[in-house]
Amino acid sequence: MALLYEGKAKQLFTTENDDELRLVYKNDATAFNGEKHDVLEGKGKLNNAISALFFEVLEAEGVATHFKAKISETEQIVRPTQMIPLEVVVRNLTAGSLARRLGWAEGKELTEPIVEWYYKDDAIGDPLVNEAHIAALEVVKAEELEEMRMRALHVNKILLKLCQKAGILLVDFKLEFGFAEDGTLILADEVSPDTCRFWDKETGEKMDKDVYRYDLGSLQSGYETILSRIGGVVHG
Amino acid sequence: MALLYEGKAKQLFTTENDDELRLVYKNDATAFNGEKHDVLEGKGKLNNAISALFFEVLEAEGVATHFKAKISETEQIVRPTQMIPLEVVVRNLTAGSLARRLGWAEGKELTEPIVEWYYKDDAIGDPLVNEAHIAALEVVKAEELEEMRMRALHVNKILLKLCQKAGILLVDFKLEFGFAEDGTLILADEVSPDTCRFWDKETGEKMDKDVYRYDLGSLQSGYETILSRIGGVVHG
Ligand SMILES: Nc1ncnc2c1ncn2[C@@H]1O[C@H](COP(=O)(O)OP(=O)(O)O)[C@@H](O)[C@H]1O
Ligand SMILES: Nc1ncnc2c1ncn2[C@@H]1O[C@H](COP(=O)(O)OP(=O)(O)O)[C@@H](O)[C@H]1O
Ligand SMILES: [Mg+2]
Ligand SMILES: [Mg+2]
Repeated sequence: MALLYEGKAKQLFTTENDDELRLVYKNDATAFNGEKHDVLEGKGKLNNAISALFFEVLEAEGVATHFKAKISETEQIVRPTQMIPLEVVVRNLTAGSLARRLGWAEGKELTEPIVEWYYKDDAIGDPLVNEAHIAALEVVKAEELEEMRMRALHVNKILLKLCQKAGILLVDFKLEFGFAEDGTLILADEVSPDTCRFWDKETGEKMDKDVYRYDLGSLQSGYETILSRIGGVVHG
Repeated sequence: MALLYEGKAKQLFTTENDDELRLVYKNDATAFNGEKHDVLEGKGKLNNAISALFFEVLEAEGVATHFKAKISETEQIVRPTQMIPLEVVVRNLTAGSLARRLGWAEGKELTEPIVEWYYKDDAIGDPLVNEAHIAALEVVKAEELEEMRMRALHVNKILLKLCQKAGILLVDFKLEFGFAEDGTLILADEVSPDTCRFWDKETGEKMDKDVYRYDLGSLQSGYETILSRIGGVVHG
């Protein structure tokens, strides 16, 4: 079946069914807008398993997503989605660009979760944008943006509860929304250690893509810990 | 009288009166967060005259400002203001960092004015921030921020009308607000070609600090044109 799109971390294929796509998780790891790139054996498998678990929980909690089924170690069936070119970032603690932006240390707890929007455009480095920029870019209506914010905060509540049980600090995460065939807004893409910051609740150890970004050790071993802890909580 | 504060473009002195400060416009020009620096004969005088004219018009239109009087070529008397460490930027056309952020050319007219907030902190390069960042920084209450936005848009309307009459395109501008002695929110700092982008309506020629930033010619001659056109409109 035809390759519809190949991104940095995943491939999307058509299937026999118009209302289903096959999403394949690759082993590629990239950082700093593609400047750093490696192939890490086993990464695709881990992200597929973790993302599937998260999407199952989110669906069970009433969040509409693109997720239909995990069909192999590296593959999922998802709903075809007209993607909105925005990344929604929700943050519970300071890290990465937020720490730099505010001039704060990493790991400072925020009184309220911070929601940020990034315009998804590799050519200009996915810039931070505000509601007025988004209106000018005409990527989404103001009401839809507000709905995305509400959903993102709802997802945060669900993931926080899950992570709490798994002994994980959910520092921040990135979501991508889009419109399903029937025009409804749904959560798409992935929820994985590639797109979330996970720190061990006791030791503060990073178990997400920052391990790769900043050469802190084995990415796979952190992702495995996440999978087993989350899996234990979801299935146990 | 004591020097209270010296910034990149102005000095602030106490006076015999607790409710008055002396604001002195310097000849210094800086750009790129202080990387570029020059002393340009006559710049302080021009900015003082232009800013005084703008503040007079704004006051006449009912905008509460720190401006009391122009007392010499380079000096004004202003109200002491507890400054809010935010820059409010209002944009009518794309230019500078907005053009880069959206990946658009300069000079594209915006359907609606865009309001942006920058956290005023030289050490971290005055980053763009959103409402959630501002709440975390605890620099101002949400209602006060909304009030600042309304006032900034009101200022935009007044300046647009004035510039229109003077044959000037008001591309964008930066404002700083603060709290007066009585706790009320007032517009402070300056409104000048250092803090606004002014283009000739017919030729598109830049007549603001971009002339200095990008070595486009004589800063003073652009500022003089602005002064005479604005002055002609205000006094004529
Ligand atoms: N259900 C879906 N339908 C269509 N496109 C999707 C869906 N889920 C995710 N995508 C898009 O697939 C692309 C592939 O993902 P990824 O490799 O992470 O790409 P990128 O390099 O853009 O981050 C992304 O652009 C993402 O927005
Ligand atoms: N009425 C006022 N009372 C107190 N401070 C003021 C007032 N108006 C402006 N300021 C502050 O005076 C400082 C001097 O201005 P400037 O030289 O432009 O400084 P900067 O280098 O911070 O831009 C600025 O920090 C500005 O916020
Ligand atoms: Mg991606
Ligand atoms: Mg200044």
